[in-house]
Amino acid sequence: MRDVAVIGVGVTKFGELWDKSLRDLTAEAGLKAILDAGIASKDIDALYGGNMSSGLFVNQEHTAALIAEAVGLTERHIPATRVEDACASGGVALRQGYISVASGVHDIVVVGGAEKMTDVSPSLATDALATAGDQEWEAFFGVTFPGLYAMIARRHMHEYGTTKEQLGAVAVKNHHNGSMNPNAHFQKEITLEQALNSTMIAEPLGLFDCSPISDGAAVLILCPLERAKEFTDNPVKIVASAQASDTLALHGRRDICTMDATVAAANRAYKQADIQLKDIDLVEVHDCFTINEILAVEDLGFVKKGEGGKASENGLTALDGEIPINPSGGLKSKGHPVGATGVAQAVEIVTQLRGEAGKRQVKNAEIGMTHNIGGSGATCAIHIFEVV
Amino acid sequence: MRDVAVIGVGVTKFGELWDKSLRDLTAEAGLKAILDAGIASKDIDALYGGNMSSGLFVNQEHTAALIAEAVGLTERHIPATRVEDACASGGVALRQGYISVASGVHDIVVVGGAEKMTDVSPSLATDALATAGDQEWEAFFGVTFPGLYAMIARRHMHEYGTTKEQLGAVAVKNHHNGSMNPNAHFQKEITLEQALNSTMIAEPLGLFDCSPISDGAAVLILCPLERAKEFTDNPVKIVASAQASDTLALHGRRDICTMDATVAAANRAYKQADIQLKDIDLVEVHDCFTINEILAVEDLGFVKKGEGGKASENGLTALDGEIPINPSGGLKSKGHPVGATGVAQAVEIVTQLRGEAGKRQVKNAEIGMTHNIGGSGATCAIHIFEVV
Repeated sequence: MRDVAVIGVGVTKFGELWDKSLRDLTAEAGLKAILDAGIASKDIDALYGGNMSSGLFVNQEHTAALIAEAVGLTERHIPATRVEDACASGGVALRQGYISVASGVHDIVVVGGAEKMTDVSPSLATDALATAGDQEWEAFFGVTFPGLYAMIARRHMHEYGTTKEQLGAVAVKNHHNGSMNPNAHFQKEITLEQALNSTMIAEPLGLFDCSPISDGAAVLILCPLERAKEFTDNPVKIVASAQASDTLALHGRRDICTMDATVAAANRAYKQADIQLKDIDLVEVHDCFTINEILAVEDLGFVKKGEGGKASENGLTALDGEIPINPSGGLKSKGHPVGATGVAQAVEIVTQLRGEAGKRQVKNAEIGMTHNIGGSGATCAIHIFEVV
Repeated sequence: MRDVAVIGVGVTKFGELWDKSLRDLTAEAGLKAILDAGIASKDIDALYGGNMSSGLFVNQEHTAALIAEAVGLTERHIPATRVEDACASGGVALRQGYISVASGVHDIVVVGGAEKMTDVSPSLATDALATAGDQEWEAFFGVTFPGLYAMIARRHMHEYGTTKEQLGAVAVKNHHNGSMNPNAHFQKEITLEQALNSTMIAEPLGLFDCSPISDGAAVLILCPLERAKEFTDNPVKIVASAQASDTLALHGRRDICTMDATVAAANRAYKQADIQLKDIDLVEVHDCFTINEILAVEDLGFVKKGEGGKASENGLTALDGEIPINPSGGLKSKGHPVGATGVAQAVEIVTQLRGEAGKRQVKNAEIGMTHNIGGSGATCAIHIFEVV
């Protein structure tokens, strides 16, 4: 297996982009990444595209071929493969791209993630997102994703004394970080009072505990590390790529306060990267709801189970804290075009490791990690990146 | 890269299976394959699942995690990845599984394909299938898949003098083969007269030129060839795994009578397998419409461009012909649960190479090939298998 590097990144602004189609978004992010890598379309050997539910959102399946065509890759008839594991589609696509380069099957590979969510009504979008859970055992009975995560939050409060203020502190931190991200869906600070007094969505989760429905796309260009310097002076090495699954429905889990898929994927990733937790300088975690950042901080091992709530409250996870979490603003503030999210997390880490993150730059960032969840935890993809 | 073998296969009956859900179908095929391979669930390291449009058909995305749970694979939290390239989803999933074993990332891998299509009305199913084409440039204007393939057929007739009788001969042959396949959707012979006089669907394609809307699932178990004899006396080696893409919309193609994705994937496959066309003993091709078998026979190189129509008419592609095509009955007669098809084609080839195909057994079958198309040719996946 060869070492693999990221040599180019591209991302669109995230938000309600009513004037841009799925095709427009992927082309924009793809061309930015191609330019950033300093390669030509003809150099590209394969494409992996993460997308959750373009069938339900825009009546379009077969999106990998669509993306390949949109960025001008049809001439060489390259393999173009869509990967779907709900909101972890982007992270899982990255893993397939990584394997295809590491194995020597392909040299230069595009990994894209995209979702166009705002062409349907919010209620239809909520229905589409519910397909990430178990249709027969959850969605059919009316459970939506805010409902599923509300049950997790409620249980976490019961077991560990986690408070609404701690949930709110996650939102406040991520909005602060997002206010410095020119591509974020929401680029504004919020106060804890605003978070606590926001419209209730699913008790105990208010509006500011929920990530938004966004449009957006993100793209990475991968190549063997040994070739990376042909294209760029600042390649970023992928030192771990791991993935794990769990039951689709929440009721099948050992413990709904722990995402065993995160624990399993993290252990695999730490082993592959041969690093200690303390070596990691920053992490993008899957804060689709504020409670999920709390679970992630615990399940990744940064704090003990039950102490995740305190991590935001006491500044541990702040931009200048011990372990900065979601410097991009996270899904909460940056936005959550579901299929794009896992790839966009990697774009942020690469940008940080290059020292190009502007006002939200984490100091001395050398090793960064992404944590991408599908559904209520049935899929987890984790990647670790390191400055070369 | 290691050699990869198929050590187990499983397939459900294909058809209108109103009493079986997507979960039931995948569990049935998965457990058959696990039993056939003589492995236990705990031996399995990863799962790849091909599925085209479970979001539109049964309101369920995230189907890889669903399949993993359905066949009892959650305990080890294995990576479970859904792959979607329209009707080529199964073949592309097989390629990802193959790469993951060949590279050494995983040892024992399950590759599944499934589609549950008959829970929606035929008109909604037709809409769902149209998402395999270009939504903005084709489906939005009312083009369905019979319409797209009818344009290809009409042009092929104009360019090469292909006749309705030749299209009908494909259907007659495939129904003959399917009549000997106990898992086929239609297990009955038809006459050329029936084919020619059937209800017109999209001129020149009649009802018997079109594959049916089916439910079904198919599963393969892969492992490194060097370990295959631990599990089975008759492993089948995968000697080539290739994939190619083309424009999503038909209007972007160089020539709508040639599927350049098939030509590109076939050339890659022949090179990887290091074989000549004459070495191939049988092929399962993607006859979603009869015209597509004609294109495949040409584009794979068995006859010159324009002579595919004669291939069925003169018996070249019959079960006892020079190059038996679709001994299973093909999509036309075996049925076409879209996400399952690519995997089911591989199940048929493995069954034939083991000499276990009963009445439809191709004599002295040692090398077989699968040809799986997505949409109107925007994706092609080709695999070549050989008796060890």
